[in-house]
Amino acid sequence: MSDFSIEMNVRDYELDIQGIVNNSVYQNYLEHARHEFLHSQGIDFADLTERGVILVVKTITMDFKNSLKSKDKFKVVVETYKEGHLKLVFKQTIYRIPDNKIALKAEVTGVCLVNGKLVKPETIPEINNFLAT
Amino acid sequence: MSDFSIEMNVRDYELDIQGIVNNSVYQNYLEHARHEFLHSQGIDFADLTERGVILVVKTITMDFKNSLKSKDKFKVVVETYKEGHLKLVFKQTIYRIPDNKIALKAEVTGVCLVNGKLVKPETIPEINNFLAT
Amino acid sequence: MSDFSIEMNVRDYELDIQGIVNNSVYQNYLEHARHEFLHSQGIDFADLTERGVILVVKTITMDFKNSLKSKDKFKVVVETYKEGHLKLVFKQTIYRIPDNKIALKAEVTGVCLVNGKLVKPETIPEINNFLAT
Amino acid sequence: MSDFSIEMNVRDYELDIQGIVNNSVYQNYLEHARHEFLHSQGIDFADLTERGVILVVKTITMDFKNSLKSKDKFKVVVETYKEGHLKLVFKQTIYRIPDNKIALKAEVTGVCLVNGKLVKPETIPEINNFLAT
Repeated sequence: MSDFSIEMNVRDYELDIQGIVNNSVYQNYLEHARHEFLHSQGIDFADLTERGVILVVKTITMDFKNSLKSKDKFKVVVETYKEGHLKLVFKQTIYRIPDNKIALKAEVTGVCLVNGKLVKPETIPEINNFLAT
Repeated sequence: MSDFSIEMNVRDYELDIQGIVNNSVYQNYLEHARHEFLHSQGIDFADLTERGVILVVKTITMDFKNSLKSKDKFKVVVETYKEGHLKLVFKQTIYRIPDNKIALKAEVTGVCLVNGKLVKPETIPEINNFLAT
Repeated sequence: MSDFSIEMNVRDYELDIQGIVNNSVYQNYLEHARHEFLHSQGIDFADLTERGVILVVKTITMDFKNSLKSKDKFKVVVETYKEGHLKLVFKQTIYRIPDNKIALKAEVTGVCLVNGKLVKPETIPEINNFLAT
Repeated sequence: MSDFSIEMNVRDYELDIQGIVNNSVYQNYLEHARHEFLHSQGIDFADLTERGVILVVKTITMDFKNSLKSKDKFKVVVETYKEGHLKLVFKQTIYRIPDNKIALKAEVTGVCLVNGKLVKPETIPEINNFLAT
């Protein structure tokens, strides 16, 4: 189990015709936060790739609570845990700043492939590190 | 219950560093297919807005099956039904063409607001039409 | 000199808060049209890469004439020619359909690298083919 | 004449299949920097819209110097000046941090419309302020 968050700002090009952040953009926010979390854990994608390791997203569920708008600041909180033998789960919540109103609750599950074969996530030492803490 | 599909092509700017369509882009595909479906049902967003009607996405679940790549063709199938009193569900599946391999299974639920208040979807005549068929 | 065009449709997720296609999206349209043109000329990016060939965009100029909106159809016309010894120029114009009103005039210049070194574009046989026609 | 800059980070979803930031994404960076600059000058788009004022981009020229990659930090410098009677010019340069290598040089020209009519930019008091400094 681990806990991590980053702060971001809405950019105007992310707004749609209704003046709110387009639904698909939240997936960009979630991906960016996951990558920043993984970097913070010493995970280097280039290095993983050289070792034949790929992390693959299998499912995403998003529960839209409140829309973000122009000039909004927000943070994306990332928690991670294992599910079953093979799944790595990222529980991600987006909170508007400063009132902490929840904009989105999301759950992203992924699996690890080494040379194309499914492996338990803890086989990758860097992943084992943050799963153990 | 209704059934609808549109065909699209992967565009190279939609690919990520791994050479596959970025996860968030599937949400663009799904949204475009829903809008085309709604247009096909005579739903005009500008007209709805003037009547104070807004359709809001509440939840999205995506189950990634197989990645789409450069030059892939695919179709997005859209089925709709009601759930409970207030929810409109879009069941959407993306099939690669021509082998019909499933790329993504998704479920999107939405609600209808009229002047900011939740209403049953069938209150909107154009929606009632396709729910009834 | 060659001439090529593809037809596309505005998708609602490409609109910005003003209800018109966001400026950066036109660059997506232009890139997609160039790639489709190059494919039509038998140019396979994967194959080029294996041969150590990279096409790099050096400059883009865009002259915005009229905004595209929801449900607009349009075509992107691509003309190509050489400039100087090393530059490949793509003159691209976006016309709204069916009234042929110009939405955008653009000029994109690129160069060819083989194993990291600048070469004359006609060194690449597939490029020489369309430059010669 | 005025001078302004913001710092940003490359996000992995902005990379293309070659592992570099996709060309169209630079336009997002440029737009975001212009909007942040305008906000810093007390320009509120919602307020402008209510007063019938629209800023429209007419031309963009981009000169790509060096590609940005995963994890790169960069700053976007924005300078503004008038050209002729009606044009507002944004000269924007993207520098990689910390080595200040230029990634992109761009020039964006815009015009001001009040209730659909072209006006001199200095007619808008907030714009006059930064043009005068």
